[in-house]
Amino acid sequence: MKKLINSVDSVVADALRGMASAHPGLLRVDEENRIVSRASGPRAGKVGLVSGGGSGHEPLHAGFVGYGMLDAACPGEIFTSPVPDQMITAATAVNGGAGVLYVVKNYTGDVLNFELAAELCADEGVEVARVLVDDDVAVRDSLHTAGRRGTGATVFVEKIAGAAAEGGAPLPEVVRVAEEVNARSRSFGVALSACTTPASGRPTFELGETEIELGIGIHGEPGRTRSTMRQARELVAVAMDALDEDMPISGDVLVMLNGMGATPLIELYVAFAEVAEYLSGKGARAARSLVGDYVTSLDMRGFSVTVCLLNEELTRLWDAPVETPALRWGR
Amino acid sequence: MKKLINSVDSVVADALRGMASAHPGLLRVDEENRIVSRASGPRAGKVGLVSGGGSGHEPLHAGFVGYGMLDAACPGEIFTSPVPDQMITAATAVNGGAGVLYVVKNYTGDVLNFELAAELCADEGVEVARVLVDDDVAVRDSLHTAGRRGTGATVFVEKIAGAAAEGGAPLPEVVRVAEEVNARSRSFGVALSACTTPASGRPTFELGETEIELGIGIHGEPGRTRSTMRQARELVAVAMDALDEDMPISGDVLVMLNGMGATPLIELYVAFAEVAEYLSGKGARAARSLVGDYVTSLDMRGFSVTVCLLNEELTRLWDAPVETPALRWGR
Repeated sequence: MKKLINSVDSVVADALRGMASAHPGLLRVDEENRIVSRASGPRAGKVGLVSGGGSGHEPLHAGFVGYGMLDAACPGEIFTSPVPDQMITAATAVNGGAGVLYVVKNYTGDVLNFELAAELCADEGVEVARVLVDDDVAVRDSLHTAGRRGTGATVFVEKIAGAAAEGGAPLPEVVRVAEEVNARSRSFGVALSACTTPASGRPTFELGETEIELGIGIHGEPGRTRSTMRQARELVAVAMDALDEDMPISGDVLVMLNGMGATPLIELYVAFAEVAEYLSGKGARAARSLVGDYVTSLDMRGFSVTVCLLNEELTRLWDAPVETPALRWGR
Repeated sequence: MKKLINSVDSVVADALRGMASAHPGLLRVDEENRIVSRASGPRAGKVGLVSGGGSGHEPLHAGFVGYGMLDAACPGEIFTSPVPDQMITAATAVNGGAGVLYVVKNYTGDVLNFELAAELCADEGVEVARVLVDDDVAVRDSLHTAGRRGTGATVFVEKIAGAAAEGGAPLPEVVRVAEEVNARSRSFGVALSACTTPASGRPTFELGETEIELGIGIHGEPGRTRSTMRQARELVAVAMDALDEDMPISGDVLVMLNGMGATPLIELYVAFAEVAEYLSGKGARAARSLVGDYVTSLDMRGFSVTVCLLNEELTRLWDAPVETPALRWGR
């Protein structure tokens, strides 16, 4: 296992030091409590947005902290939920008096910990709501999940709900927007290779020379089926068919063609061309899009595609200014 | 070889279709002539900036086309220089009457083709200047190079000279700025794995389980030496020592910690933390920074670090608004 790290135990702490050094104008890193928050601090009267989850999915979540998106992120160890203490400290730190929204990917550990944290926050007088992201259509229940897994739509929820909060929407309104984004979003992933966690040093599963996994989870959880390698066009069709079957795709859509961490950008653009053609065949259109690494699985090769059926409100909120390490426009 | 492509022969064309679909507001892709240019077209009186080179280094160069940076990019086949016809067509297309600057990475094929193109442009009455980027300190002459290779500093030259051009600087002034950025910039790369071109289907070189290549080129050209895998801290020290030996590092620097295409972002941040500490030990500071995949080598694992010694002018031009697929701020 060749990884660009100092030691298996210090990966997350070292990466957070790196984020702090790379983005001093945007981020503050509380190394002790392991919280990444906006350098500008909380804004009075604004709903605070907090997310978090296991590390290994960078830039998710800490890379989405900043104006127009998250107020704070709580990174856990690699592929491991953060603990309630982090979530409570984060909520308290970002609370501007208008309450806090936890954006929670649907994995059992995250769900329980964010739930406990929300209850303890309420005891301390901080109003906390939660939105559950469960966009992955590949499997109904999974290794770490009751119900669908939360994957790519997390980026859309954080961006769009973040814009609503930045615009002064009260907590119930931010919750409504976040839930609407999740309801209108679906994802499907394909692995060309497994990933290797630093702690284990071995691939999380084995794929043969020509084998791929359709419907892969972001921690390498099994998908729907193994298959043999095919053209990008065919793999995209498998993914898009799965999305369309679950939620018919039409009109203007927001698309994220996401790399899993070790997929060259040129290949992601090849796949995006096929997504655009697929949409065109459905009378739909990629009105807004992201192509790149946004929700990764360490060094996994492969891609996921996430679509969100846009409406006027969501489009406006997507287009609103954002300034984070990983997404930045309009400022 | 599992690659997310349709066919070996169509990779570049398919990726360009993907770029066109993903960034319709920013880019126009001339598929026939294989040129990526700004959707907004040329601006009268502005110096045009054109770059290009082999594909496989995405987002370089087409991902840097847009306001404040390049006017057009000419992608060649993978790891293969574009041809003079592309360069001439691009220069003619973006010429706003104030001349054109070719940003050329120092590889023999690129140098010759851009030189020929510049001569033919002059015959047609389009004034074209060239700047050669040769920032890689690893080796003096290389597989495809007389003199140093051009790598990461290309991003700095394109951004900073692009800002100068956007601000209305005349051609000699844009050339001066571009040359100054190159003169103040140095790079060094480390490979943890080789890359595999679609055409060959095999790694460009072999590295053992614990072997790495220090001073790697962006096409997998040999570096200074093979070594055994070490901590991120030690690898960064090797790279930074090489830069510092060639050009003493002090004061405010612009740093790019660049992933080679298949290096997880969490590892790049781990490495960046070490770069920041190294700089601090030299009394220097990463005043501006990029962490991510900017000049890649297909699916190579590893990183490169590029530093540019800033001054007031270069800092101002770096901070100026930019709006491209891969770099975007202030707009």
